[in-house]
Amino acid sequence: MGKHLARDLDDLQRRVLAMAGKVEEAIYAAIQALRERDAALARRVIAGDEVIDAFENEIYEECLKVQALHQPVAVDLRRIATTFMVNTDLERMGDLAVDIAERAEALDSMAIVPAIPDKLVRMTDLTAGMVRQALDAFTNLDAPLARRVIRLDDEVDRYHSEIIDELVEEMKSSPDVVEAALSLFSATRHLERIADHATNVAEDVVYLVDGEVIRHRPESSRDR
Amino acid sequence: MGKHLARDLDDLQRRVLAMAGKVEEAIYAAIQALRERDAALARRVIAGDEVIDAFENEIYEECLKVQALHQPVAVDLRRIATTFMVNTDLERMGDLAVDIAERAEALDSMAIVPAIPDKLVRMTDLTAGMVRQALDAFTNLDAPLARRVIRLDDEVDRYHSEIIDELVEEMKSSPDVVEAALSLFSATRHLERIADHATNVAEDVVYLVDGEVIRHRPESSRDR
Repeated sequence: MGKHLARDLDDLQRRVLAMAGKVEEAIYAAIQALRERDAALARRVIAGDEVIDAFENEIYEECLKVQALHQPVAVDLRRIATTFMVNTDLERMGDLAVDIAERAEALDSMAIVPAIPDKLVRMTDLTAGMVRQALDAFTNLDAPLARRVIRLDDEVDRYHSEIIDELVEEMKSSPDVVEAALSLFSATRHLERIADHATNVAEDVVYLVDGEVIRHRPESSRDR
Repeated sequence: MGKHLARDLDDLQRRVLAMAGKVEEAIYAAIQALRERDAALARRVIAGDEVIDAFENEIYEECLKVQALHQPVAVDLRRIATTFMVNTDLERMGDLAVDIAERAEALDSMAIVPAIPDKLVRMTDLTAGMVRQALDAFTNLDAPLARRVIRLDDEVDRYHSEIIDELVEEMKSSPDVVEAALSLFSATRHLERIADHATNVAEDVVYLVDGEVIRHRPESSRDR
């Protein structure tokens, strides 16, 4: 690989990591806004999505530029193809953080809100950790780490399922909280989808490094 | 553009359309399984996802092959980059059809199920139409059609919102149906996400043809 191509690929990777940092921040802030019913923080997350969208567009154009300029082949071409997909996954994670923030905004205006399940904090830590590790695996072409990320998704699904169980009980016993509980239901589902996107990234890394197709099917039969 | 590149791009496009046909079938079958509580049909949709996944992998490899072989530039390179993204969107739509089929399977085992909203049929027709038209827009590089697809998404969101309203009322008045109504709530949400993916495809077509970035933010503040 020529040194100019190597430099351009490194630069591309740095931008992807900067974008991932913004996505991780948005996830934490959205969940904090939900837990503390902080509509102002929710609105900041929603407004901040512009920055993530701008990153996506820049990275897309940069990928095309590197391809046109260097006509990379073999592993370098595959790496850029993976960057296209990781870029899209990160942008969708940003959208899902906005979806969570919108649920937080909605909750803020509701009179009766069920207790926010404590498990949501643990599920958020796990999910944000998956995002970070999936990106680390991509940066270092570390397939074993990517495989660990894929396995973590089962744990996120378990938390998701347990939180839904709690919310179903709340809805059954107090019809007054149905709407608020649905907002929490949706927010939890959005968080679980962020973990799915992190899993997609990890699967792409395994394919890039080992050439093995792993088809993750989210365990949504427990989603209700 | 050389005639070999033109032929390979046409072949790629044919595969993408064949994949889209499978996705459209899966969407209709999943909703039919839900409405008729047909667990056998639901299982066929779930099993059929393998075919869609195989298409995705073939198209991905074919994109790389065309790039390595022809080193396309300018509009051809952009077209292949868009194909990568459309391919991913189609595969995710297939996953969402599976998610709906899993809700259908779950409903089949429940004793008390609320009426399936009639609007779900109309919403399904609209969504499947969006998928088809987004792919037509991509095949023919038809930006005006792509813009119409993007506008249709608001109509899908409206149906989604109305169906959710009906389900919330059911849950409030009969705690017995909470779990079944949540399955319908999720299935409707999955369908709405399929329309979002069709919108993503249409946005990519507008960007490819007109160079204009359209950032669709789903109207999820009405999702509950």
